[in-house]
Amino acid sequence: MQKKKVDESLTVMTQIVLPNDTNPLGNLFGGQLLAWMDLASSVASKRHSEGIVVTASVNNVTFSVPIHLGSVVTLEAKVTRAFTTSMEIFVDVWVEGPSGKTRFKANTAIYIFAAVDENGKKRPVPELVPETEEEIKRFQGALRRREMSLILAGKLKPKQATELRALFE
Amino acid sequence: MQKKKVDESLTVMTQIVLPNDTNPLGNLFGGQLLAWMDLASSVASKRHSEGIVVTASVNNVTFSVPIHLGSVVTLEAKVTRAFTTSMEIFVDVWVEGPSGKTRFKANTAIYIFAAVDENGKKRPVPELVPETEEEIKRFQGALRRREMSLILAGKLKPKQATELRALFE
Amino acid sequence: MQKKKVDESLTVMTQIVLPNDTNPLGNLFGGQLLAWMDLASSVASKRHSEGIVVTASVNNVTFSVPIHLGSVVTLEAKVTRAFTTSMEIFVDVWVEGPSGKTRFKANTAIYIFAAVDENGKKRPVPELVPETEEEIKRFQGALRRREMSLILAGKLKPKQATELRALFE
Amino acid sequence: MQKKKVDESLTVMTQIVLPNDTNPLGNLFGGQLLAWMDLASSVASKRHSEGIVVTASVNNVTFSVPIHLGSVVTLEAKVTRAFTTSMEIFVDVWVEGPSGKTRFKANTAIYIFAAVDENGKKRPVPELVPETEEEIKRFQGALRRREMSLILAGKLKPKQATELRALFE
Amino acid sequence: MQKKKVDESLTVMTQIVLPNDTNPLGNLFGGQLLAWMDLASSVASKRHSEGIVVTASVNNVTFSVPIHLGSVVTLEAKVTRAFTTSMEIFVDVWVEGPSGKTRFKANTAIYIFAAVDENGKKRPVPELVPETEEEIKRFQGALRRREMSLILAGKLKPKQATELRALFE
Amino acid sequence: MQKKKVDESLTVMTQIVLPNDTNPLGNLFGGQLLAWMDLASSVASKRHSEGIVVTASVNNVTFSVPIHLGSVVTLEAKVTRAFTTSMEIFVDVWVEGPSGKTRFKANTAIYIFAAVDENGKKRPVPELVPETEEEIKRFQGALRRREMSLILAGKLKPKQATELRALFE
Repeated sequence: MQKKKVDESLTVMTQIVLPNDTNPLGNLFGGQLLAWMDLASSVASKRHSEGIVVTASVNNVTFSVPIHLGSVVTLEAKVTRAFTTSMEIFVDVWVEGPSGKTRFKANTAIYIFAAVDENGKKRPVPELVPETEEEIKRFQGALRRREMSLILAGKLKPKQATELRALFE
Repeated sequence: MQKKKVDESLTVMTQIVLPNDTNPLGNLFGGQLLAWMDLASSVASKRHSEGIVVTASVNNVTFSVPIHLGSVVTLEAKVTRAFTTSMEIFVDVWVEGPSGKTRFKANTAIYIFAAVDENGKKRPVPELVPETEEEIKRFQGALRRREMSLILAGKLKPKQATELRALFE
Repeated sequence: MQKKKVDESLTVMTQIVLPNDTNPLGNLFGGQLLAWMDLASSVASKRHSEGIVVTASVNNVTFSVPIHLGSVVTLEAKVTRAFTTSMEIFVDVWVEGPSGKTRFKANTAIYIFAAVDENGKKRPVPELVPETEEEIKRFQGALRRREMSLILAGKLKPKQATELRALFE
Repeated sequence: MQKKKVDESLTVMTQIVLPNDTNPLGNLFGGQLLAWMDLASSVASKRHSEGIVVTASVNNVTFSVPIHLGSVVTLEAKVTRAFTTSMEIFVDVWVEGPSGKTRFKANTAIYIFAAVDENGKKRPVPELVPETEEEIKRFQGALRRREMSLILAGKLKPKQATELRALFE
Repeated sequence: MQKKKVDESLTVMTQIVLPNDTNPLGNLFGGQLLAWMDLASSVASKRHSEGIVVTASVNNVTFSVPIHLGSVVTLEAKVTRAFTTSMEIFVDVWVEGPSGKTRFKANTAIYIFAAVDENGKKRPVPELVPETEEEIKRFQGALRRREMSLILAGKLKPKQATELRALFE
Repeated sequence: MQKKKVDESLTVMTQIVLPNDTNPLGNLFGGQLLAWMDLASSVASKRHSEGIVVTASVNNVTFSVPIHLGSVVTLEAKVTRAFTTSMEIFVDVWVEGPSGKTRFKANTAIYIFAAVDENGKKRPVPELVPETEEEIKRFQGALRRREMSLILAGKLKPKQATELRALFE
């Protein structure tokens, strides 16, 4: 399989916050944003791996800024590291207010997707080659985040997580 | 404010997996499940805090079992610890297959919700009193998970996370 | 087939009233509630009969209390009597207002579901054994309601409806 | 208020059965049809009463024919009797199969809607004048059905239901 | 194939403008109206051709009147000319305001649908026989509109469009 | 108001074709695509004009290629000419098949949006400065398309349409 660059998986998704997407304060439900981020990640990882993909996990996501009814939400997803049969995807979320004059970054989330065939069996994915400084930084951090995921899923003991342990020493 | 028990916030939500909820393999989208878990958590935390709540964060969630079209998905959410103005909620997800004869646990996710007033300002929430062994275990683990969240959000340095550090020593 | 208890079919479904579910007064559409009650009943009757079910009929339903936007609606459905290939299901509807402090009973509806196989042919269902006083009362009333249904569907002459006639004498 | 004819409230609604409207057999959910019938009735009663209306009750509805995915469902709703502040509406449901060559009647349901003002208070509605033989027959039957509703809602004792009692004698 | 009349394809569709259908001014999205008009046209052309149909094109559509939240929108679609394997459909759109007292015409759109078999291959459609003055006028105008479509699609040179050229001379 | 470039309004929207978006052949409804194109155009014109916008008209749109269930649809909308209070927007539609390996252009549509204030009154929009060859070509063609729209809306006589008449001479 041919190696691929980060930009080949870039997926831009634009959503408008409609009444049914909002809570009693008139702000976007966190769960709706999680679903949109999952959708954007699925397209990015499908583009990288050229086949069916399924959500494997989502990292810790924090919601700090309310997103108002009528806002335009732009999600930018791209694969940041390819493992053997899975991929890490970063989703950056930008918001333009209803007045259309301001634009701010609301969120960043990290999803892991697995590549599968039509029977749901895992299949190999192309290697990813990071190029820019940010791409390389996210590529390198992916190992540490993977260890964290494995610990949280009970598949790795904290003491064996060499990348992570360094943080606490 | 009067202290509350875990069961006072128990929220049971039943969903049926419809065609629009599924990927090309005919299985539930991870993002749709994240949205349902957020909804169940929001009701549980609203019941505990008797007012408006908003999603603050969601912990690492892993999707290991495919959930098929036509399955009945039952989400059980309950508050596991109350902090000053926020709450930790566990959501356990049970699945009955389309044939209706099997039932298995598909997932557990942990959400944090903040209690706010009508202007979006944080407001205090009642204390939670755990009773059963499992309730106490989840109550105690909440501190460790909170440290992890703060680290991931860049608001706490790993070396200051006393609960977490113990894991790696 | 093994006999079953009422609680084995208990189905709890929680819904939040969103903007698209409401009329110009900001209250839940009666039709949306009818659809939710049907969904809850379908899961309860599927649990009792362990297979595919389809709506056979819905009894007279009265809407007396408006349910406001943002309310949490909890539906509790359970099989109240099993006939040869069909089941009667009671759905009780509870509402918590947007403020989250009040809780009242809004409705009770009665649905009949038929158990079918994959070709849509009727199939036998397990017998139901009522235990509590309320379960027994609902179990016994089911015969009278069945006569009423048959009369309304033109399949039984009023004078042959022995259970019902007693009411008017 | 000026008296009105039946046809002034005639409401025709056409729906296509989409995947999300169907059960595992590929047939329309009963609950979805109940919601569409409620919607059609609300428009018909709004046309008769020229203002806001809310569902008061739905009569016994029987589902005898499966309606397949891709079918075209046509609902015809019209007011059949006006009471002081409420109206009875008949909804006839016609189905054309996916092939488009057959057309059959699937259902008839009877809804009661109440006319209200912007504060939800009941308001008077115009008198209805039936003209054709069928309109007159449905107009006359409305009284009997109203008695039945009142009995089922516990607001009338069976022995006081003069119209109904006649049926059983 | 037997010739058909215009009224045999008449399709009436009633929609209520719900919150999610509206822009920040509380008026119906143009795109939502385009989707409803497409749906109504698809049923009308399916009725004329008795089989599967797909959208081929939509003519220039102008939106001049805002349609408010809560309005009742009635679409009337009918086939106005049948070509060999395609049909022209007129959709007239009527609006009743939320108060229910006014009714005005909001729009007319013209769609072309193609008749296809189960493999997506074009199939012949019955001839259409216009009867009333308006039906004849729309029938005759269809040729001119077809030339316009072919020009816009780059399939006909303006100078060959004999019907259209006459307009500019 | 400061002049703006075409790229400042570029809007990329990604959609996945779900079951409810498809006809009996399993292909995307034309009307759903029209609604998505309207949404993308509304964001592009909002970005150019920094305020509320409403659909004014959509040009002739042709659907020549079926888009299958599971396809990823990418819409790219950008303002191509600004008039006094309205804007012309081109929407190019790209499709990646479910297998994820092919990508083709499915459609181009042209929408006109009007800029309005909070009371729905027209408001002026910034001038657009085209730069690339394609941008200039689309900018110039906009006048001709505007004449066509005015003729079709009955607001301009064909003989006064100087840009258009040239085509037929």
